[in-house]
Amino acid sequence: MHRDLKKEPLRGVIPPMATLLLDDNQLDKEGTAQLIEHLIAGGVHGIFILGTTGECTNISYQLRRELITLSCEKVNGRVPVLVGITDTSLEESLALSRLSKEAGAAAVVAAPPYYYGLGESELITYFNKLADALPLPLYLYNMPSHTKTMMTQKAVLELSKHPNVYGLKDSSGQAVFFNAMIYAFRNRPDFTLLVGPEEMMASTVLMGGNGGVSGGANVFPKLFVDLYNAADKGDLKEVARLQEMVMELADEIYAMGSYGSSFLKGLKASMSIIGIGSGYLATPLSAFDKDQIEVIKKKLTGLAAYKQYI
Amino acid sequence: MHRDLKKEPLRGVIPPMATLLLDDNQLDKEGTAQLIEHLIAGGVHGIFILGTTGECTNISYQLRRELITLSCEKVNGRVPVLVGITDTSLEESLALSRLSKEAGAAAVVAAPPYYYGLGESELITYFNKLADALPLPLYLYNMPSHTKTMMTQKAVLELSKHPNVYGLKDSSGQAVFFNAMIYAFRNRPDFTLLVGPEEMMASTVLMGGNGGVSGGANVFPKLFVDLYNAADKGDLKEVARLQEMVMELADEIYAMGSYGSSFLKGLKASMSIIGIGSGYLATPLSAFDKDQIEVIKKKLTGLAAYKQYI
Amino acid sequence: MHRDLKKEPLRGVIPPMATLLLDDNQLDKEGTAQLIEHLIAGGVHGIFILGTTGECTNISYQLRRELITLSCEKVNGRVPVLVGITDTSLEESLALSRLSKEAGAAAVVAAPPYYYGLGESELITYFNKLADALPLPLYLYNMPSHTKTMMTQKAVLELSKHPNVYGLKDSSGQAVFFNAMIYAFRNRPDFTLLVGPEEMMASTVLMGGNGGVSGGANVFPKLFVDLYNAADKGDLKEVARLQEMVMELADEIYAMGSYGSSFLKGLKASMSIIGIGSGYLATPLSAFDKDQIEVIKKKLTGLAAYKQYI
Amino acid sequence: MHRDLKKEPLRGVIPPMATLLLDDNQLDKEGTAQLIEHLIAGGVHGIFILGTTGECTNISYQLRRELITLSCEKVNGRVPVLVGITDTSLEESLALSRLSKEAGAAAVVAAPPYYYGLGESELITYFNKLADALPLPLYLYNMPSHTKTMMTQKAVLELSKHPNVYGLKDSSGQAVFFNAMIYAFRNRPDFTLLVGPEEMMASTVLMGGNGGVSGGANVFPKLFVDLYNAADKGDLKEVARLQEMVMELADEIYAMGSYGSSFLKGLKASMSIIGIGSGYLATPLSAFDKDQIEVIKKKLTGLAAYKQYI
Repeated sequence: MHRDLKKEPLRGVIPPMATLLLDDNQLDKEGTAQLIEHLIAGGVHGIFILGTTGECTNISYQLRRELITLSCEKVNGRVPVLVGITDTSLEESLALSRLSKEAGAAAVVAAPPYYYGLGESELITYFNKLADALPLPLYLYNMPSHTKTMMTQKAVLELSKHPNVYGLKDSSGQAVFFNAMIYAFRNRPDFTLLVGPEEMMASTVLMGGNGGVSGGANVFPKLFVDLYNAADKGDLKEVARLQEMVMELADEIYAMGSYGSSFLKGLKASMSIIGIGSGYLATPLSAFDKDQIEVIKKKLTGLAAYKQYI
Repeated sequence: MHRDLKKEPLRGVIPPMATLLLDDNQLDKEGTAQLIEHLIAGGVHGIFILGTTGECTNISYQLRRELITLSCEKVNGRVPVLVGITDTSLEESLALSRLSKEAGAAAVVAAPPYYYGLGESELITYFNKLADALPLPLYLYNMPSHTKTMMTQKAVLELSKHPNVYGLKDSSGQAVFFNAMIYAFRNRPDFTLLVGPEEMMASTVLMGGNGGVSGGANVFPKLFVDLYNAADKGDLKEVARLQEMVMELADEIYAMGSYGSSFLKGLKASMSIIGIGSGYLATPLSAFDKDQIEVIKKKLTGLAAYKQYI
Repeated sequence: MHRDLKKEPLRGVIPPMATLLLDDNQLDKEGTAQLIEHLIAGGVHGIFILGTTGECTNISYQLRRELITLSCEKVNGRVPVLVGITDTSLEESLALSRLSKEAGAAAVVAAPPYYYGLGESELITYFNKLADALPLPLYLYNMPSHTKTMMTQKAVLELSKHPNVYGLKDSSGQAVFFNAMIYAFRNRPDFTLLVGPEEMMASTVLMGGNGGVSGGANVFPKLFVDLYNAADKGDLKEVARLQEMVMELADEIYAMGSYGSSFLKGLKASMSIIGIGSGYLATPLSAFDKDQIEVIKKKLTGLAAYKQYI
Repeated sequence: MHRDLKKEPLRGVIPPMATLLLDDNQLDKEGTAQLIEHLIAGGVHGIFILGTTGECTNISYQLRRELITLSCEKVNGRVPVLVGITDTSLEESLALSRLSKEAGAAAVVAAPPYYYGLGESELITYFNKLADALPLPLYLYNMPSHTKTMMTQKAVLELSKHPNVYGLKDSSGQAVFFNAMIYAFRNRPDFTLLVGPEEMMASTVLMGGNGGVSGGANVFPKLFVDLYNAADKGDLKEVARLQEMVMELADEIYAMGSYGSSFLKGLKASMSIIGIGSGYLATPLSAFDKDQIEVIKKKLTGLAAYKQYI
């Protein structure tokens, strides 16, 4: 019934869906349904829930379970749903994966356990154990800024031999590493290579990568899909035009305030401004205040991307 | 009923109890009971469960709940039980704290949420929110190597004003920071300052700190209690004699192999050698193999501490 | 007399020339002359001496001075010579710049002082002071792994207003930052943006960057020049073909052994194998031993790049 | 003629002397002479010039040479002079050491080369090479925050076998590491262990360390000498009284402003307020402005240490 992700591997834009909340303990179910329609209408090639942009680790397991069920139900097979199961406890990851399978998700995504930093051999052992026990395909997730563990080239190559490991999402931001991955997997079209930072999506696709998990696609899904298509076809002129929109978005919207949470604050504020969600961020993060929202509103509506896509 | 930890603040050796397991999903209940008797017989001043040494984040919530209940039951009020509730989700921390209260724990201990790194003001907001909602006294836990967030002096001072914040456990290993804390709280005997690394316990007590959360006390509780008492009385000669044992332990037992997990591997191997627990480590960590255990055995039984205390 | 680097800004491949040595205290003058001819024959657009690949900080000032004079004399105006003057002491940087001017260099390149880490405003103050005092155009050099100071977007934008600051060489390896630079300077064709890691050169040129300071060009200058030209023309097929050679080079030659110096060891070994220099590395680094050289030789002569370009 | 530092090893307070400047290119010779008298009058056990507090790497080699000569001349054998020769180039370190020998210095101090980070074996090779070639005794200097290279226990133990390596100055701030050193060298009274951060001096002496390179001794030499003596005698009450002064100094004077340079700015401002030097900091650092100096003045004159010692 499900598409075979080895034979038809993932390609394109798979947004890390923002988790819309009414408060710390309640999903915004209506907003979530609306966001899913917004993404699918924009032409995305899959939806990744409970990633870093989805504030995965900040919400309770109860909410995570509700979100998995709700998302799979609303997407209803139109695109593959990938579920982030990153956890410090193997058992909790497996529990989420079993629920994901039941709910109809296509695959799961896992970064290394992130409390204790792991060594290379511990990392390999861990992911082999996880991949053995999972009821769904696994995409590795490299996120060293949050997990303190950089996946080495050797670890990824070793793990790629496991029949249940289908690809890598790399959010290290290190283009040298990503290019090494493209080279290492040049004869493995079944192994999907996705890049995290949206500013790198076009260039990595031009160099042979398979797409991106672009956070900004929560606001402008079609912009990122168009950019992916332009890069995939090698239309450099169109890439340049759209990339400028992507960079303007980053420059104007994600850089306000300080700390690592600026991106998330700007993103959720922008979503609420275009009518999706309330802008609430789960503890320990918090939304911009009214004055900041006004600034974001002014900036957002002035963007070239806004003019073309909203 | 419970001792008032403001009026009679914590002092002394509060070991971070190792979590004894049969496998990833089963507590070693017998071993746990035995370990608790071992610790109390050694004279410890409290027991801290589900800390970093307790592999807190690696085990499932089900096991964490069982351990809380079991430990409180077995300790049975003889010493205060502190429960680590560090989590990335506020709701999960609160759930553990409610169970801890019911089970009879004296207090909880929390490090910052550890997936997203937090800025100073986010940190302060988070801990105030947590302290407001907790049913038990809170000890702050500074553990920057694992949480990526160093608690600043400003943050600790600010949070120490909250009536439900009772102290700080500092595992940064930065003596300058700890000494600054001793200075900052010189007129606050109600605010407890505990140091993490056991190698620093004696010196920080000599300088005015209140004790330590010494991992090695799982094996040699009385050694650390004697060392604390010597330091507390200012008996420098005895401090020197016992500190040498502590350093020999670290040098011989914790340094084998690589990675951050060497300490835990050596500790659990040593515990099993003296008959406490099986030495099992929860995924993603793993125990030493037989040959390595033999090496540890030889080293352990040769220690001055072993000769005096076992 | 000199080309005006504002009106005709730098574009293309400007290799960070390896410093050829007989021992710690003697330049290999013959080798240096030969290397310069090798680079110019390969079509490089400039030569950057005393960069990180040039072991800049490891050799004495006496040798640095000799190298500046020798290189400028041998290049003899055929391409611009850029001189690395990165130092912890402003006065020593200025002394090297004065000599560079006399010798006929076209510009200088400076990373932040690298003993004390600097804050953003200290960084801006420092570079403005340096740019004021320099007798030659200045290219900023972002090298956070070695200097501990990441140049912020704000700092680069601020410094780019100084009439004597002509561009940026970014070796952070962070594609998001580099793309932000491309966006920020999209209307400043006079401000040159060069990327450090050779694995990123093609993609950054495709996205609008101006070229690269590619270390591997010491061995294969024409490969990198051809790759630059292909990227500059938007010939994606040729880019893919040549990029694979570049990645094979990195994968086979730079990854042997451990530590940050593997790249330099592999590079100098490869140069010696094709007859340029003795392979000597200045203290505190050291060359591969004979057995390792044999391995490199086998790998090097098997490279697609070797077959096409040597 | 010189005291044999193996037979009479260094003990006590050896301040890292601040480098007094009129501007970037001129020593304040008068101020330097006055500072040396101030230190010796305070009872210091040695003087360490051109350390991190001495802004070693920020001044030109010409100034470094002048300072070496001037300091040795003014000290005139009353206490040992140690000279910092940390450099990225072995040859430049050796040149400074030869001048130091001629000028009458007792020993040199060297941190690892600090541009390229070194691996453990490169570190050992480097220091053995340096120790072989030096005309004076060598003290190792562990300063990972500035050099990016943490000296491992293994490296120090290995290097301590070299007849020309006399001790270690550790500025890592990691008490666990320092205590491991005390343990490792418990039977080597000839091998001197000095701690960098002044906040740690008393506790490390209580635990068996040999003294400190305390920056604040530039202002209050006698305070640190008294504290050392109290710790050395095991007078815990006096240690507590003086340690509080030391911590008050750190809390009030070193914490103003941001960046790593706050300590140096506060220190040089304090020195100028008590009449020693102009407060000038070499580029790329800069002194506090007038308003900030006024704040420092108020704070400084209110310190318990000021009241007792100035």
